[in-house]
Amino acid sequence: MSNAVFYHAGCPVCLGAEQMLINALDRNKYQLESVHLGEQADRIAAAEAAGVVSVPALVLDDQVFHINFGAALTALKS
Amino acid sequence: MSNAVFYHAGCPVCLGAEQMLINALDRNKYQLESVHLGEQADRIAAAEAAGVVSVPALVLDDQVFHINFGAALTALKS
Repeated sequence: MSNAVFYHAGCPVCLGAEQMLINALDRNKYQLESVHLGEQADRIAAAEAAGVVSVPALVLDDQVFHINFGAALTALKS
Repeated sequence: MSNAVFYHAGCPVCLGAEQMLINALDRNKYQLESVHLGEQADRIAAAEAAGVVSVPALVLDDQVFHINFGAALTALKS
C-alpha cells in the first residue's frame, strides 16, 4: 500500500479533483490522504519540498501531478 | 464500467502521467483509453469539445483534468 497525498485549499477546482480521486483512485494500491493547506499551514513546507507549486496537486510515489489549477502555493503562504 | 480517456502527445510529461494512471486508476471502475493526439489528429475535435486545452489531460465522467503541462492543444493542430 502506497501513500497518495492530495494537497488542496478547499477551492471548487480542488473539490472537483478530490471527488475524482476518491472515485477513481485504486484503493487497493493507494491510501489517500487529503491535506487542506489553508487549514494546515504546517504542511506547506513539505508540499513545497515534494515539488508542489499549485493546488490541487497529487503526490504519488514521489511524483507530483498538478491537476487543473486552483491556486498557487505562494498564495497560501501568508 | 466508465470510460476514462487520456489525451496526450507522447511528451515526457505525458508519459509520466500515463504511467501514473496505468498504476493508480481503479480498473474495476474505469476502462482507460489512451489517445495520442499527435498520431490521431482526427480525435482533436472531440478532445476540444470535451474541454481539453492542453495535454496530458484525462477526461473522466465528462470532467476534464489537466495533469501537469506538456503542450497546448492548439500546438497540436497543424
